[in-house]
Amino acid sequence: MTPAPLAAARVRADELDRAVDVAFRRDRFLLPAGTVYLDGNSLGPLPAAVPPVVADVVTRQWGQGLVASWNAEDWWHAPERVGARIAPLVGAATDEVVVADSTSVNLFAMLVAATRLRPGRRTLLVEQAAFPTDGYIAASVARLLGLHLRPVDLDCLTAAVQGSAGRDVAAVLASQVDYRTGRAYDVAQVTRLAHDAGALAVWDLSHSAGAMPVDVDAHGVDLAVGCGYKYLGGGPGAPSYVVVARAHQGALDPPLTGWHGHARPFAMAPAYEPALGVSRVRVGTPPILSLLALEAALTVFDGLDIRAVRSRSLSLTSLFCDLADEHLAGAGFTMLTPRAPDGRGSQVALRHPAAYGVVRALGERGVVADFREPDIVRLGFGPLYLTHADVVTAVEQLAAVAAHREFDDPRWTVRATVT
Amino acid sequence: MTPAPLAAARVRADELDRAVDVAFRRDRFLLPAGTVYLDGNSLGPLPAAVPPVVADVVTRQWGQGLVASWNAEDWWHAPERVGARIAPLVGAATDEVVVADSTSVNLFAMLVAATRLRPGRRTLLVEQAAFPTDGYIAASVARLLGLHLRPVDLDCLTAAVQGSAGRDVAAVLASQVDYRTGRAYDVAQVTRLAHDAGALAVWDLSHSAGAMPVDVDAHGVDLAVGCGYKYLGGGPGAPSYVVVARAHQGALDPPLTGWHGHARPFAMAPAYEPALGVSRVRVGTPPILSLLALEAALTVFDGLDIRAVRSRSLSLTSLFCDLADEHLAGAGFTMLTPRAPDGRGSQVALRHPAAYGVVRALGERGVVADFREPDIVRLGFGPLYLTHADVVTAVEQLAAVAAHREFDDPRWTVRATVT
Repeated sequence: MTPAPLAAARVRADELDRAVDVAFRRDRFLLPAGTVYLDGNSLGPLPAAVPPVVADVVTRQWGQGLVASWNAEDWWHAPERVGARIAPLVGAATDEVVVADSTSVNLFAMLVAATRLRPGRRTLLVEQAAFPTDGYIAASVARLLGLHLRPVDLDCLTAAVQGSAGRDVAAVLASQVDYRTGRAYDVAQVTRLAHDAGALAVWDLSHSAGAMPVDVDAHGVDLAVGCGYKYLGGGPGAPSYVVVARAHQGALDPPLTGWHGHARPFAMAPAYEPALGVSRVRVGTPPILSLLALEAALTVFDGLDIRAVRSRSLSLTSLFCDLADEHLAGAGFTMLTPRAPDGRGSQVALRHPAAYGVVRALGERGVVADFREPDIVRLGFGPLYLTHADVVTAVEQLAAVAAHREFDDPRWTVRATVT
Repeated sequence: MTPAPLAAARVRADELDRAVDVAFRRDRFLLPAGTVYLDGNSLGPLPAAVPPVVADVVTRQWGQGLVASWNAEDWWHAPERVGARIAPLVGAATDEVVVADSTSVNLFAMLVAATRLRPGRRTLLVEQAAFPTDGYIAASVARLLGLHLRPVDLDCLTAAVQGSAGRDVAAVLASQVDYRTGRAYDVAQVTRLAHDAGALAVWDLSHSAGAMPVDVDAHGVDLAVGCGYKYLGGGPGAPSYVVVARAHQGALDPPLTGWHGHARPFAMAPAYEPALGVSRVRVGTPPILSLLALEAALTVFDGLDIRAVRSRSLSLTSLFCDLADEHLAGAGFTMLTPRAPDGRGSQVALRHPAAYGVVRALGERGVVADFREPDIVRLGFGPLYLTHADVVTAVEQLAAVAAHREFDDPRWTVRATVT
């Protein structure tokens, strides 16, 4: 089945897969047979722990327990409890993380809060290649507060925060991993540059957390947000989380002052008084089904050091990059992702002139990747469930799609809603 | 079993329950045996349609379909699809409602948007007795935008919007039903008074929609929000919905500019461009499990006119009020809820000096109500699943709790987290 050029690679992959690896936990996932799933960077696959928990939440906790489950099952503290589970994955203390709302909503709240922590400063610096919602939300915050929004190339951050311009910067918003290219930025360095200018560093961890270390506390990150449905595996639209460094918790003043963030929510007091600590980031009633699915999903990380996850991720992406260099370059693919391991997250992006067709044809061959405008094939490597053999299969099928020009199939001329 | 004073009432209730009523759909709910559930105004009970749908969403759609389910199951348009299901319940057109986020988040967005639709006006009028989150959020919006926040007694709204003060009002925020007292306000009248002053009417329908008509379009309501987990029955923390009158959709300019509200979200364009219509209210990725549970829950209303639901609700609450007058007044209870049917929603509130103990003791007797500070026993009458016999049981048990002073039990001295 494997064409001759990749036969040696498959032997090597099988050897790697036979070695014991604590981060390989495929048996904790329910993956469809015959699929190589390289889109866990968009929607993580279903952890086996989730279906029984969700069934219990619906049928017993809600159906039988009714409203009393807010106490009996402690739904009320689920945002903090699930946050505490995420904390070690991003290098935060358990009381620095809370789960709430969506990444976009949390970004809005944290950018306003960041600006209030740096009164008098009137500029927001936003990484220019960030996921669009980051830029949209930052632009909205800037408009609302009358701030200057400056898109910045993180490679030029040193210059951007120098001198008087730097002294006007309230916050720098950056993503640890570029959602298109898979490039990873240096959290320590960017945070330090922000701090040197007296600004706060606000990170979007959506495209990295759960697949690589972040070490927010070690690097002095001020605020961070991230999504629950990618490498964290919480399911479609799983709620987002917020990290607030302890040093900022007392003064944090977010604008979404919903009753769940109140110090005494059931006093139903007329005036808002923020809860102590990170709980003040909470807003309204959280979607309990989705939130407790995320809680169950996070058990796949039990007892696992995120550095072991990173090792496995790099082993998979390194193998892919090596094989892509060897077998795909002549087939019209160009690699967008940095080759230095430190320079990338857990995804690899290939340019191809017919990228949309490539992704669709690849799907027909049982390899799920995704497409990003204008010409990017994006492949995510969920370290916990993918094998090195899967990587070989992916390269093999990409080569086959290109060799047979399957990307030209007229079925791919009309694009799906969600590409 | 029924004490003599209530025997006649039980005979009458049984007669009422034997009559055919299209709005009685108890067989569509999975209620625990032996419980009279009078807290559906806080968390609606589990509709039987929900567990199989949620199991399918988790196991097949997410587990097997993976990321492709965004297209194959049309997760992408679920916010509009579920909104269209809510629309007839509140008297809106199907393209005027979208499901998103929590009530608090949506209130924030709609109050900012309302202010932008009335540039130059610098006052927000907020019903003084509104659910606390409404006031907290309005205060935050006022602070952020430099507006004046004026709490108002809706009974004095005419005076509050007169003259030059009225010409400064951008929006009036009101709840159709008071979450504590159960009092219902006249949506037509309050909306007209707001409009007479040139202001927008923004309604919180959380405590009414699904149990009584709102008729947003007939009354010219501009914007409305509501929650999905009370009478709509979507489950704990079910997402919220937003109503935007067609006349405002083109100009609506909400501040939470997430990518799901973009005109072309997958173009990943650098600048935000709002989607046409109500979709621009969307922000980030919605919690699909909770959202599709709400969609399944709403099938309990299939083919049902909300006026039939209201009739049954009034029949239940009228019976309760009559019996309470007769059997509970001497036992230390005072009715807070207006006696005129038009003046109340689907809940009844009783004052009692030991209200918290009353609610707890009542729970031990299989009747679930809730407590609100400082001295309120709140009883919600979900019209679709409660019987008139349940109403008699509730009064009977309230009388028994009072007769035996069970509210004094030392077990109730420490309050639960969620009261």
